[in-house]
Amino acid sequence: MNPGRFITFEGGEGVGKSTQARLLAQALEAHRYEVVITREPGGTKGAEAIRDLLLAAPGPGWNPRAEALLFAAARSDHVERLILPSLNAGKWVISDRFIDSTRAYQGGGGGLWDKDILALHQLGSGGLLPDLTILIEVSPARAAERISLRDQGRSDSIAGRAADYHARVAAEFARLARQEPERFVRVDGNADADETHAKVMAALTRIGVGQA
Amino acid sequence: MNPGRFITFEGGEGVGKSTQARLLAQALEAHRYEVVITREPGGTKGAEAIRDLLLAAPGPGWNPRAEALLFAAARSDHVERLILPSLNAGKWVISDRFIDSTRAYQGGGGGLWDKDILALHQLGSGGLLPDLTILIEVSPARAAERISLRDQGRSDSIAGRAADYHARVAAEFARLARQEPERFVRVDGNADADETHAKVMAALTRIGVGQA
Repeated sequence: MNPGRFITFEGGEGVGKSTQARLLAQALEAHRYEVVITREPGGTKGAEAIRDLLLAAPGPGWNPRAEALLFAAARSDHVERLILPSLNAGKWVISDRFIDSTRAYQGGGGGLWDKDILALHQLGSGGLLPDLTILIEVSPARAAERISLRDQGRSDSIAGRAADYHARVAAEFARLARQEPERFVRVDGNADADETHAKVMAALTRIGVGQA
Repeated sequence: MNPGRFITFEGGEGVGKSTQARLLAQALEAHRYEVVITREPGGTKGAEAIRDLLLAAPGPGWNPRAEALLFAAARSDHVERLILPSLNAGKWVISDRFIDSTRAYQGGGGGLWDKDILALHQLGSGGLLPDLTILIEVSPARAAERISLRDQGRSDSIAGRAADYHARVAAEFARLARQEPERFVRVDGNADADETHAKVMAALTRIGVGQA
């Protein structure tokens, strides 16, 4: 039996994370791996209920500290009830967003210290990190185009923030990838989904998939 | 103008905190103080939505770490949007539960370290502490009697925990009061509400109320 691995997709809105997560899950299943595909915030009943509060805040909106605490609470439930049990059962877990999104959005975007966000992750989830994190990056123009196609004018309370917020988020993702080059692979997502998927599969050789 | 003060009521289930908070608010209003009466978890729209998740967990229930993170998120919203603005406007704020409940329930009851809970409070709410905390203590038999009268057989997911959990909570409240004797006053709540209220008013002389 292959030991389970934990792979996350990260990046801004509209870069194609969920499409790529699905294509990767299909490719791994074709290689007979048992795959669990999940997302954040969410993935368990408790965490999905917190997701609802995060994406449509009751009242005037969460401050960045409350937001980081809610993400950490949702992640704690997700890690304890879905991610760790799946990995312990030898399954591969693919998550559309994880800790690095909190670091980029509430840290880079919202101004919290990265060390504080990592302290919350240590408390909530024992500091669990993925085996591999695929950061998909697209030009702001391409991302805007995809968001508008997907949302048709609707937008949740995080996606709807100002352009400079999203620019700070993208810069923080890039900084994290440079800081942890062993864990991160940066993938250019400007081309179509199949081409991007080929780059994702190439990146997987780093954790031993697709090699003889 | 009198500067605003922040007073919290703490203690286990069924000790009479909300009754005493209301009686104190009425007494202060009779002395022409402007009073805001509130409660935790809750007190603002966002925090009340988190309260709903805490008292009726979706899924199989929160682990103590997720629970502490949710309390800290709710408190961050409550402090930022209600408590601090009220204090800054010169009002008195009376809260039925605050940080010490998280320390007693998720710390003493749930096994988290007090220093971790205080770190969450520092991050979420700048470590705000009350000017005065009134810990109401009753015998376990008296508390059980009042809970049964109040809930008529219903019970939320925290109140419904086992007796030894609640014993650890009560012991942790007592430990906190011994550790911070300048902030805490312990009040025996076994007698009727009026008698207990007289003890609460006597305790208030400590922060200059009721003195010539």
